[in-house]
Amino acid sequence: MTNQPPLPAISDPSGTLSVESLHNFCFDAFTHAMLSESDAAIGADVLCTTDCWGIFTHGIKGLRGYLRRLYAGGLNPRGRPNIVAEGGGWATVDGDSSLGMVTSVFAMRTAIGKARETGIGYVGVRNSCHFGAAGYYAWLAAEAGFIGLSMANDIPSVSAPGSRGAITGSNPLAYAIPAGRHRPMILDMSIATVAGGKVAAARERGEPIPLSWLIDGDGRPTDDAGSYPVRSTLTPAAGHKGYGIGLLIEAMSGVLSGAATTWQIGSWMTSDPRLPTNHGAAFLAIDCAAIAGGREFGAHMEQLIDEIHGAPTAHGSDRIYVPGEIEWDKYDVAVRDGVALPSDVIASMTEAAEMSGLRLESYFS
Amino acid sequence: MTNQPPLPAISDPSGTLSVESLHNFCFDAFTHAMLSESDAAIGADVLCTTDCWGIFTHGIKGLRGYLRRLYAGGLNPRGRPNIVAEGGGWATVDGDSSLGMVTSVFAMRTAIGKARETGIGYVGVRNSCHFGAAGYYAWLAAEAGFIGLSMANDIPSVSAPGSRGAITGSNPLAYAIPAGRHRPMILDMSIATVAGGKVAAARERGEPIPLSWLIDGDGRPTDDAGSYPVRSTLTPAAGHKGYGIGLLIEAMSGVLSGAATTWQIGSWMTSDPRLPTNHGAAFLAIDCAAIAGGREFGAHMEQLIDEIHGAPTAHGSDRIYVPGEIEWDKYDVAVRDGVALPSDVIASMTEAAEMSGLRLESYFS
Repeated sequence: MTNQPPLPAISDPSGTLSVESLHNFCFDAFTHAMLSESDAAIGADVLCTTDCWGIFTHGIKGLRGYLRRLYAGGLNPRGRPNIVAEGGGWATVDGDSSLGMVTSVFAMRTAIGKARETGIGYVGVRNSCHFGAAGYYAWLAAEAGFIGLSMANDIPSVSAPGSRGAITGSNPLAYAIPAGRHRPMILDMSIATVAGGKVAAARERGEPIPLSWLIDGDGRPTDDAGSYPVRSTLTPAAGHKGYGIGLLIEAMSGVLSGAATTWQIGSWMTSDPRLPTNHGAAFLAIDCAAIAGGREFGAHMEQLIDEIHGAPTAHGSDRIYVPGEIEWDKYDVAVRDGVALPSDVIASMTEAAEMSGLRLESYFS
Repeated sequence: MTNQPPLPAISDPSGTLSVESLHNFCFDAFTHAMLSESDAAIGADVLCTTDCWGIFTHGIKGLRGYLRRLYAGGLNPRGRPNIVAEGGGWATVDGDSSLGMVTSVFAMRTAIGKARETGIGYVGVRNSCHFGAAGYYAWLAAEAGFIGLSMANDIPSVSAPGSRGAITGSNPLAYAIPAGRHRPMILDMSIATVAGGKVAAARERGEPIPLSWLIDGDGRPTDDAGSYPVRSTLTPAAGHKGYGIGLLIEAMSGVLSGAATTWQIGSWMTSDPRLPTNHGAAFLAIDCAAIAGGREFGAHMEQLIDEIHGAPTAHGSDRIYVPGEIEWDKYDVAVRDGVALPSDVIASMTEAAEMSGLRLESYFS
């Protein structure tokens, strides 16, 4: 949107950026796109935390795409998510086409507030957009002492048993559970067997893939990674189980909230950036301290985790991880040593900088 | 427990019993074990409905095992599930070691009552036992117009990525969603790749199994069905995803309710039948009519289902099912023509009849 001179090559050849610098870059890009400082900080918090966890597919790599919609009008930089209906333990939030992260943080905070009152809160969201990593919002709840769940729908990309093409989105599901002296247990998964990015990586290496990952245009298993995504479709994880969970997420985040579902959703990457996408999402918070007693709940989670850590490992395995531990290990390294950004993320940030009139190089100094 | 003369061969060679006769048999067996008539009716409702859906592994086949515990004292035939703690949108139920079905129906009804007040209700259960098919309780909620979720923990039988043996139970998860003019959408799944019964069937046929189903005693994949269950362990569905969902269920049904978890749970089949098992369970109900409007929610679910039914099918596939449709088709046949009971179910019922002083043959007349 701005005409900048070509950027000089990034001075740090390793592409490692301190968390503070990464956050600053993201914040500056969002404020340049007319987000308020508080909304820009929320967006930067979500994307930077995601990169610190090592989930680079859902972190600052997406910034370019969000900026494109913010500049084109499909995302409203001054949109204000608001509660359009509510009851004792629930609310429906209209995202007003604001940044998906802004709407989602507002919604999870609302769910936590409801859970404080009644023990459990559900918030459905309509008029949202891609929200990044579902795990972030679940973690917000766990940070506040609550069990958190978050989920969202998306344009169809995953088949169903017996289908020839896509039926549901990859529909992310995440939870976070406070765990006493341990970090919160966090799972963030999609309902597909593998992420499309994993197929693309095999394609680039020219390798075949397991027959369980894709179906071809006739609905038959294929090991041809080169066929994806034009002539093949991702399969649901564990067949009818992943498909079934995908439909639960569709109902909870799309139908219950009054958002768009399946083919009525706009693609946050490829649809007209001047138009809203109307993604749906759902957030739940459960007050485990009120229900079980905070000390008892934490002690029992500790016992469960310690038991798993002490269980016999498989031949060739060093340890048994509980969900989130791998990400927390990466997080600690990122905070200490900076975030080692992959080249595709740097390339995307370079474009985001161009769109924002920022000099990416200056953040590496 | 009673000394009956040997039963004559069952007169109906097909082993088909009307739903009413199946229910009567189950009811009579439970009342003989000193359950009240209302509790016996609940137990019979759950088990017969499960068989009508064709889920014979979790229907009346389990009756023998429940009776054994009822007669030995591990299950208390006069136990009364009761609310030991509660808030606006939640409750903790102590099952008082009553029949798992009695406690679970009480708990789901309590969750529905909470959801009527606040929009969403959570009920955790402790001092329960095996509850049969999770889908039944979810369906109870859907019948009342609510989205229902039910789940439970169990003794460890499923491995984790990197483990050598079992880490979590097969931890069932079920949902049911009202769907307008369609029957409720129902999913009832375990977090294992396949049920142990499927491995046993391959073993009986002398067939190898896919390498993804089991790990051997070193934690390596094995295709030897004969090794199960003594020298091998079921794998989690979709690896870390099934494992992660299993731990969420453990937290929601065991930790949050104050029940036993993992190795502290008693086996409902093999542990001392004089002792309680202290299984945990969790039930959620969501008032979709209050949140989305009953008509709007139903119409949107219809649209979603109709869209799936209309989607192109894979080569060799007649149709794309939504979760529960296969079971509803079987249900209709069962109600019309009777339930065609497999031979292993008949064998189990024969033992249950012997324990109860009932003549199984008389129910087939």
